[in-house]
Amino acid sequence: MRTLKLNIAYRGTKYHGFQRQPNAVTIQGVLEQQLSRVLNQPVTVYGCSRTDTGVHANQFCLHLHTDRVIPCKNLVRAVNGYLPCDISILSCEEAAADFHARFDCTGKEYCYRIHNHESKNPFLTDLAYHYRRPMHDERMAEALKAVIGTHDFRSFCAQATEKSNTVRTIYDASLRRSGDMVEIFISGDGFLYNMVRIIVGTLLDISEGVFPPDAMEHIIAVGNRLEAGRTAMAHGLYLNRVFYEPFTK
Amino acid sequence: MRTLKLNIAYRGTKYHGFQRQPNAVTIQGVLEQQLSRVLNQPVTVYGCSRTDTGVHANQFCLHLHTDRVIPCKNLVRAVNGYLPCDISILSCEEAAADFHARFDCTGKEYCYRIHNHESKNPFLTDLAYHYRRPMHDERMAEALKAVIGTHDFRSFCAQATEKSNTVRTIYDASLRRSGDMVEIFISGDGFLYNMVRIIVGTLLDISEGVFPPDAMEHIIAVGNRLEAGRTAMAHGLYLNRVFYEPFTK
Repeated sequence: MRTLKLNIAYRGTKYHGFQRQPNAVTIQGVLEQQLSRVLNQPVTVYGCSRTDTGVHANQFCLHLHTDRVIPCKNLVRAVNGYLPCDISILSCEEAAADFHARFDCTGKEYCYRIHNHESKNPFLTDLAYHYRRPMHDERMAEALKAVIGTHDFRSFCAQATEKSNTVRTIYDASLRRSGDMVEIFISGDGFLYNMVRIIVGTLLDISEGVFPPDAMEHIIAVGNRLEAGRTAMAHGLYLNRVFYEPFTK
Repeated sequence: MRTLKLNIAYRGTKYHGFQRQPNAVTIQGVLEQQLSRVLNQPVTVYGCSRTDTGVHANQFCLHLHTDRVIPCKNLVRAVNGYLPCDISILSCEEAAADFHARFDCTGKEYCYRIHNHESKNPFLTDLAYHYRRPMHDERMAEALKAVIGTHDFRSFCAQATEKSNTVRTIYDASLRRSGDMVEIFISGDGFLYNMVRIIVGTLLDISEGVFPPDAMEHIIAVGNRLEAGRTAMAHGLYLNRVFYEPFTK
């Protein structure tokens, strides 16, 4: 039995997220269908994470088990030939028998893209959040620093429960502008449900003056979702990198 | 009567090119429809150029005449509100009464985008030509230099006629690679039908060894379309810039 580690990329617009669902088209569902077709046996894939409807991935890692002898390169080529244009296998390699894409994952980096211009960009439909008003980049970048480190992020969790552990470590967080494209990168050992989108929404509220510039520390400390800002739209969010080694910038 | 100069951008995938046609959806048709709606009078727009089905524009200039007093900024906002997501007005300004987007145009720059990777990129569907094999960048860049200057480009014209003037001046031509994205920029005072696509197709033939590295000079000299290479796919082509001043890089 072989364990294969695959990296994929996808445009999430037309999918009900990554995870298989009985009555909806999902990335996992489509992948398993085409992998099963090429390997000529039922295939289950184990993803590094879940992503919501409309969320994209520049790198998403998963593993699968198979007893077929097809070389990795040929598998990639054959399955890519069957996959729709919005899902692509980037690489495939042999992994240790007990490799697990989710449990062995040491961290992830998300990128949130904001197209900040009066007019929409016809090439960024569904690929970046279109924000028309001027943005206070420096105020946002400064506020963003507060999330770096180990904190209880329950204020930034859409479905916080008393039971679960809501402490996460954020390795790095930065905001970069190139012309009218603003990208917010956040990497950490794990993320709560909607965490990145609520952080970004809160930054936009800080930019607009709804919250004071130093609101982030307070919101983290108080531990209440109601104190944080809006949830930024899904279609600006990308799972950007997945780590299986100690984090490096 | 006012003359307005507009810059627009569009994703050409779903359109039968720029120019209005009776039984097809075109950029011009859709624009005129929404401009007429906002200005509440029939509007004709005059474009700087035509583009083919599937070809995109990062900048496309056009002009129109109107006696309405609506400020440019409000016109942009109102029309953008009605336009589909793949067409966007970037700017609008008052122009000289006799300004003509096509006749006053002093040059244009095209960009041809090639995604050179074994696997397709799900974010580049319809936005770049996907080319799987290794490319000889240097060989292509060297061959590309031959088009710079004033030449008779009838070899690179899809519908060459004996009558028309097929001499054009190419100001600059360059190939730039960033990772797996290769962009070929060509600017000049004018372009024949399919000229950029045939130049790019010929460069790919040179890369593949179908033609020798120095084939470009010969193909220009012989003046015969049959001597040039294939026509590269439309969806990699962008009208990138339009000039109304002397050309600058």
